[in-house]
Amino acid sequence: MADIPVSHTDVLIIGAGPSGLAAAYWMARCGIKARVIDKRTRKVMLGHADGLRTRTLELFDSIGFQHKVLHEAQSLAHYAFWRSDGNGGLHRHGGNRQYDLLSGSPYFPMGLSQARIERFFLDTIRECSDIDVERGIVAESLAYTEDVEIDESDTYPITVKLRALSEEEANAGLPYGDLRVIDRNNVPQDEWDDLTPKKTKNPGEKEVLKAKFIIGCDGAHSWTRKQLDIPLEGSTTEALWGVMDVIPITDFPDIRRGGFVATEAGTMLLVSRERQLTRFYVSLKDVDEEASNRERSSVTLDMISKRVQAILSPYRFNYEICDWWTAYQVGQRLAPTFSRGRRMHLAGDAVHTHSPKIGLGMNTSIQDGFNIGWKIALVLKGIAHPSIIDTYDLERHRVAEEVLHYDRNFFAHFQEDAPETGPSPCFENKAETMRNVLESFLLFAEGYKSFYQASPLVLKEATGVAGHLEPGERLPLVKICNQADGASEWTSRILKSDGRFRILVLAGDMQVESQKQRVVALSQYLDSPCSVLQRFTPKGHNLDSVIEVLTIHSLSVDDIELSEFPEVLRLLDRKRGWGYDKVWSDSVFPLDRYCDGKAYETWGVDRVRGALVVVRPDQYIGWTGELEDVDGLSGYFDGVLREPKC
Amino acid sequence: MADIPVSHTDVLIIGAGPSGLAAAYWMARCGIKARVIDKRTRKVMLGHADGLRTRTLELFDSIGFQHKVLHEAQSLAHYAFWRSDGNGGLHRHGGNRQYDLLSGSPYFPMGLSQARIERFFLDTIRECSDIDVERGIVAESLAYTEDVEIDESDTYPITVKLRALSEEEANAGLPYGDLRVIDRNNVPQDEWDDLTPKKTKNPGEKEVLKAKFIIGCDGAHSWTRKQLDIPLEGSTTEALWGVMDVIPITDFPDIRRGGFVATEAGTMLLVSRERQLTRFYVSLKDVDEEASNRERSSVTLDMISKRVQAILSPYRFNYEICDWWTAYQVGQRLAPTFSRGRRMHLAGDAVHTHSPKIGLGMNTSIQDGFNIGWKIALVLKGIAHPSIIDTYDLERHRVAEEVLHYDRNFFAHFQEDAPETGPSPCFENKAETMRNVLESFLLFAEGYKSFYQASPLVLKEATGVAGHLEPGERLPLVKICNQADGASEWTSRILKSDGRFRILVLAGDMQVESQKQRVVALSQYLDSPCSVLQRFTPKGHNLDSVIEVLTIHSLSVDDIELSEFPEVLRLLDRKRGWGYDKVWSDSVFPLDRYCDGKAYETWGVDRVRGALVVVRPDQYIGWTGELEDVDGLSGYFDGVLREPKC
Repeated sequence: MADIPVSHTDVLIIGAGPSGLAAAYWMARCGIKARVIDKRTRKVMLGHADGLRTRTLELFDSIGFQHKVLHEAQSLAHYAFWRSDGNGGLHRHGGNRQYDLLSGSPYFPMGLSQARIERFFLDTIRECSDIDVERGIVAESLAYTEDVEIDESDTYPITVKLRALSEEEANAGLPYGDLRVIDRNNVPQDEWDDLTPKKTKNPGEKEVLKAKFIIGCDGAHSWTRKQLDIPLEGSTTEALWGVMDVIPITDFPDIRRGGFVATEAGTMLLVSRERQLTRFYVSLKDVDEEASNRERSSVTLDMISKRVQAILSPYRFNYEICDWWTAYQVGQRLAPTFSRGRRMHLAGDAVHTHSPKIGLGMNTSIQDGFNIGWKIALVLKGIAHPSIIDTYDLERHRVAEEVLHYDRNFFAHFQEDAPETGPSPCFENKAETMRNVLESFLLFAEGYKSFYQASPLVLKEATGVAGHLEPGERLPLVKICNQADGASEWTSRILKSDGRFRILVLAGDMQVESQKQRVVALSQYLDSPCSVLQRFTPKGHNLDSVIEVLTIHSLSVDDIELSEFPEVLRLLDRKRGWGYDKVWSDSVFPLDRYCDGKAYETWGVDRVRGALVVVRPDQYIGWTGELEDVDGLSGYFDGVLREPKC
Repeated sequence: MADIPVSHTDVLIIGAGPSGLAAAYWMARCGIKARVIDKRTRKVMLGHADGLRTRTLELFDSIGFQHKVLHEAQSLAHYAFWRSDGNGGLHRHGGNRQYDLLSGSPYFPMGLSQARIERFFLDTIRECSDIDVERGIVAESLAYTEDVEIDESDTYPITVKLRALSEEEANAGLPYGDLRVIDRNNVPQDEWDDLTPKKTKNPGEKEVLKAKFIIGCDGAHSWTRKQLDIPLEGSTTEALWGVMDVIPITDFPDIRRGGFVATEAGTMLLVSRERQLTRFYVSLKDVDEEASNRERSSVTLDMISKRVQAILSPYRFNYEICDWWTAYQVGQRLAPTFSRGRRMHLAGDAVHTHSPKIGLGMNTSIQDGFNIGWKIALVLKGIAHPSIIDTYDLERHRVAEEVLHYDRNFFAHFQEDAPETGPSPCFENKAETMRNVLESFLLFAEGYKSFYQASPLVLKEATGVAGHLEPGERLPLVKICNQADGASEWTSRILKSDGRFRILVLAGDMQVESQKQRVVALSQYLDSPCSVLQRFTPKGHNLDSVIEVLTIHSLSVDDIELSEFPEVLRLLDRKRGWGYDKVWSDSVFPLDRYCDGKAYETWGVDRVRGALVVVRPDQYIGWTGELEDVDGLSGYFDGVLREPKC
């Protein structure tokens, strides 16, 4: 080992897929020293995951690239169920459907290749840091000293040996031949630089890397998980499915609308996509006598395409352009824990696998990486107690269980929907059941319901003061007016993912004198040496660098002036002036139909008396209370943050 | 000249500011061979123009980068008038104001530095072509043979000698010292590559360039204009103004809202901007006894800043960060013509200058370049008659006249608003007058009214069939639903600026049998060998490559299937399937508050009978008629397009 160079990093992220990049985002944004390695020499360019749920879009907005996603993605707001009509034809069951529950939100489910999401993450990471994914690198051994307390000293209890791969090793076992050549003709211009593999090391070159934390985001066959001796429990069914992304040439009416088709010939899910692509998921059982051994490796693109033809018949189906295809066996598997101690974690497919058909894979993975990322970053910065790291497994394991539960429910009906011999009499009911499953899980699937459990980060005492705000759930999206410029903005963009906790001062109606006094009293507390702002902000830093106070009042912007708000609510920066982005109004802005002055209503808050809300760096609600409840407020932050050493 | 290399290009664009880049966009998009040269070795990085009008935002949407602009720009939907209150204070006159006229549109006026707009143009040009701006290059002589007919032969009647400049020559006379250093700290990451001047030639290197067309976009002191012997007529007033972009530190309430301040100490316009910048325009007369000679070169940043302080008093004003500043004398100047023959043209500041305060400079310039660009591109492709080029001067000269007219009106009141000795009794009326000027010109200023005159491109016969659609004006923006996927989209994005004319088939209510027959009859015409589609599309090209047919019906998407539309309305592409982006519905989409099913109403079209509308490649209305009026339709295209040679 004498010849092998030794380096140190705070965080090692293994795998640069959606979960790895979401975690890496936080290291980049918070200025944490991190390394990101990936086995493949080139990023994903086509295919793979493609479903984006609304919470994920909110998250992208808080990161700053949601506009790019919306510009390219395909809306999946519409869908339909199709079935055999009994006369050899197909019939749309129950007409066109929309996700009505999402009304009022600017976001719908969208379809866009994982390749693009990774692109936007990579660009953002590059914009705010020097972190770059090191490709063609594999970890070969992992040693660690358990139970080393996390303090601020320079201990690196994790040792990983890295090795650079040859092109052949790196890309061995890439999925399923027949992929078309990926070149400048079929990927957007901003991917061109990454078409040529960029190697930072020569094949065979080794490195010993010592790290304080490790996050294994290395997929369903996770090497890291095996090193940590964490199993993946569950089962794989016999059912074999094919997936393909093609530009279909068909007269099937809902080819751009997406939905479900269940006939004698099989069961199929359609997802309409960017660039006139459609993704097809088809069951492959009985497709071919010879393939009935159900070996995944025996599946061909032609087999999938023939199955689609059979299911869509009598509509015609063909294609000339295929972006990507694969085959998989449906399995629900879950790791019993996502963490080993506080320093070693797993995220994404490494700890949960399920059917891709429910469109939750990429979303869940991103949110795993996002969840562990900010916690480690804040602990490494010395801002947060190491104990908050324990909430990663607590919060995300529960979500993964629910994902698998949903998948099992959905999949069960999906399978049943394929009547063996013509439409069964109870088919209509089954389609209805499937729709019910879809709708009953919708708020969870969209990420509007997360079930994050009580912990120092989530104080669940029912104060009733903000009736629709539930600690452990994400802050429901509203559009509000900025007091200083009158412009409207969604909270998904206002609550930036920049590592800061936020206190939302829902100031209510300050034209009521008693209410104004309540706001003044709160502000006096915030300005005092014993306040959470003063106590947890390191000396010499801006008073909003750890906790940002945002005020949202219920008056019109025309009924009050920014100067009427206490200075601590609109902190003056010596170089950048007053905090114009800190005071907002829940009022109607006639030029914006989404800015309807109903934030307080959405949040269940009294328009006169207001409330106090703590929002975590990931936009989840941590605590709610009355404006006077500064003890409750302090209590929350005492459980989460560390006072800086003088 | 023996040693000087000779090259050929179809179009030479001199000057890579907003007008030059808007023209270059078309060459890039249409695959035209073009060269773009600019004297400076580096693109604009900070300051300069910053006002974006709503029509310009629509245009960006049709090009494909509007989402980037909206992501960065500051809303200017609000403004206020301030005046002395007679007691040494300032008083907001008439409260906060909004551009109510723009209600229903997704766009408001926005503020964003010209630097960013140029960035987005450059990125788009690079995405679709090999055209790159050659910097540090100056044209030194221009010779041309007039009256060479434009045909398809290879004649290059324009000869320009180019010379590469040294860094010193290129950047001589850059404005007004005291500019802070421009580096990675103060420009976004996507500008970093352009921080270092990129020279394609060595200083002194020469080239003889022969061109078919030239577009001079080289600013108020246009070298090209002088070569073409076209004067700039008008006058410069004595009034001297200072401009600065700073991050203000002030307690003035409307510093983020923008607006007008007129007091004893002078007159000022505020434009709130991205990154918490504010732009200040201040009159400098009498600011300083010694500077009263009103020499522009005598103005300093400190002088401007002191004037702002005086006007905003008793509010405090200061700053630490200044991005940019300059001084100018107000002048209204206009070239009598924008073209010399059909081959040589001028655009932007080269042919019209006015006060920057009305926020129309960059908008008018972009639209000039955009207007001449597509016309030259289509003529060079052999698609359009050379005569359409004559409409450039016809259309844009009239607009420039109106801009100057507006500027004179606005400026007159602006000046008067500064009472010499305290608030005059009629001040209130004057502020009201100024507001009236602002509002009466609003539709023009926003680009919603353009007065393009009758020409082969604009047939003005009143058919009454689409009462609110006026040939010569831009198609009013509506949001409609796609028939194939149900998703909603603004027409600004549907009507892409890709060089195609469009026939909008407003199919009305096809559940009415007689109406359906009218649509079928029109489709039979479109499918027939004598139709404009068949006649003007070159052999071997897709039938939508010159003229695209878009259908917008008035039924709900649920009441009709795509397959019920005749095939010519949803052209099948052998590789890409049916034309899913060609059939739309004017119906309510409950998940999108802007998609309200009122397109027909906005356009003044009968919901049953529909109409036929021709939209030019720049989204201006060319012609309207009944669905039966295929003679009128043919007539329009006969006057504009050339039948391809067999």
